[in-house]
Amino acid sequence: MTTVTIFGVAGLPEITPGADLGALILDAAGKQGQPLVDGDVVVVTSKVVSKAEGRTLELGEVEPSQFAREWSRRWGKDPAVTEVVLREATRVVRQLGPVLITETRHGLVCANSGVDQSSSGAPGRVVLLPDDPDASARTIRAAFCAAGIDAAVIVSDTFGRAWREGQIDVAIGIAGMQPIHSYIGQHDPHGHQFQVQALCTADEIAGAAELVKGNLSRVPVAVVRGLRWERDDTATIAPVLRDQVRDLFR
Amino acid sequence: MTTVTIFGVAGLPEITPGADLGALILDAAGKQGQPLVDGDVVVVTSKVVSKAEGRTLELGEVEPSQFAREWSRRWGKDPAVTEVVLREATRVVRQLGPVLITETRHGLVCANSGVDQSSSGAPGRVVLLPDDPDASARTIRAAFCAAGIDAAVIVSDTFGRAWREGQIDVAIGIAGMQPIHSYIGQHDPHGHQFQVQALCTADEIAGAAELVKGNLSRVPVAVVRGLRWERDDTATIAPVLRDQVRDLFR
Repeated sequence: MTTVTIFGVAGLPEITPGADLGALILDAAGKQGQPLVDGDVVVVTSKVVSKAEGRTLELGEVEPSQFAREWSRRWGKDPAVTEVVLREATRVVRQLGPVLITETRHGLVCANSGVDQSSSGAPGRVVLLPDDPDASARTIRAAFCAAGIDAAVIVSDTFGRAWREGQIDVAIGIAGMQPIHSYIGQHDPHGHQFQVQALCTADEIAGAAELVKGNLSRVPVAVVRGLRWERDDTATIAPVLRDQVRDLFR
Repeated sequence: MTTVTIFGVAGLPEITPGADLGALILDAAGKQGQPLVDGDVVVVTSKVVSKAEGRTLELGEVEPSQFAREWSRRWGKDPAVTEVVLREATRVVRQLGPVLITETRHGLVCANSGVDQSSSGAPGRVVLLPDDPDASARTIRAAFCAAGIDAAVIVSDTFGRAWREGQIDVAIGIAGMQPIHSYIGQHDPHGHQFQVQALCTADEIAGAAELVKGNLSRVPVAVVRGLRWERDDTATIAPVLRDQVRDLFR
């Protein structure tokens, strides 16, 4: 009988460019008396990954395009933020009033290209999504492995979704384990193929981790302990990102 | 520092119409040495709720419409199943080849109106979604409260989603706690409104619970322990179901 425990890793310092997140997480977990162990899945909020990687922008340095200026004036938005959102997008999936659902370079579909103006560390600064969340996850996992801890890493962000209100945390990058668990070809006792063919466990883990992070508290890292998972260092988030061609909602 | 523990409740019997799920869950949890306590959030898979409520159909008793027959022949589907899917839908949101994304009476958007042919207990039988998942959740919660246990209840199901592969468990009914946690009006240290205005904690809890249920194992109930939540017996899943008017993806 599987029992899963989830706890936050507190006490991380304010993250600045160049920070070694893996080392900081190991240190903070140890200091709070809950050192990481083999088999842990460590969920790191994308915001701290972006801060460590310098993926922030000062809005004062952004020159908004004419389109950004006019659209922003119409909808009461900051034109510099709009400009950044558009630059970080490959396409606009939907626009209705002030809402911009975009597809990012990574193939993620979310509001405002994931550009975040809150908790950026300074007024007038925005945080962008990490450049390559899988690579970020691999770097952190490598730091854990170097310290003798075989832990998987998920980089998470908070996204909205179609048809349902409220946002949830999902995985935008992963290292060490596959994000999707497939049941294709398996059958129930009556020989029926399982209705559920593939579960996105990475997203369920990301959402579970959010439960202890609390959006208002300074807990950008959570450990999900007790899951059984297969090591796979070829894993990326790619299987989760639906092909535009197959997506009925693009 | 919040620590959340999640464990499955095993040993439930095969569920038949009229089963008192609340009582069975209390009993099984006690027998496995992990009795329910105040503050638990109990996540119950919709399939067992449907079985307890007799929400199953024998396909042999279903007379497929001409449309169901022709469409099924074209895409290699069972016409009786197709007929049931269409009956359980208020509208077809998308259809591409054999894929039918429908909106159910409840306002849920999912594949095949949530009709499930696997693990139905017999060949030729399908399980429908519960008639009123909130009411089902309330009934189970009432059984817990009558036994002196103040536990919230979520009825969960496994759904696909737009833009992302793999399915995840989400909440389709709830009792005792609000499904969405709102941060509207709150600010970060620099005075910015939080980017995330509302978190759908009910869906995150449902997904977290799935991690210990394992789709192939007979564990349709999981307990999520350690969350802090506010009691609210007026709560329903309604706030999560986006108005068709506001939904850019209907």
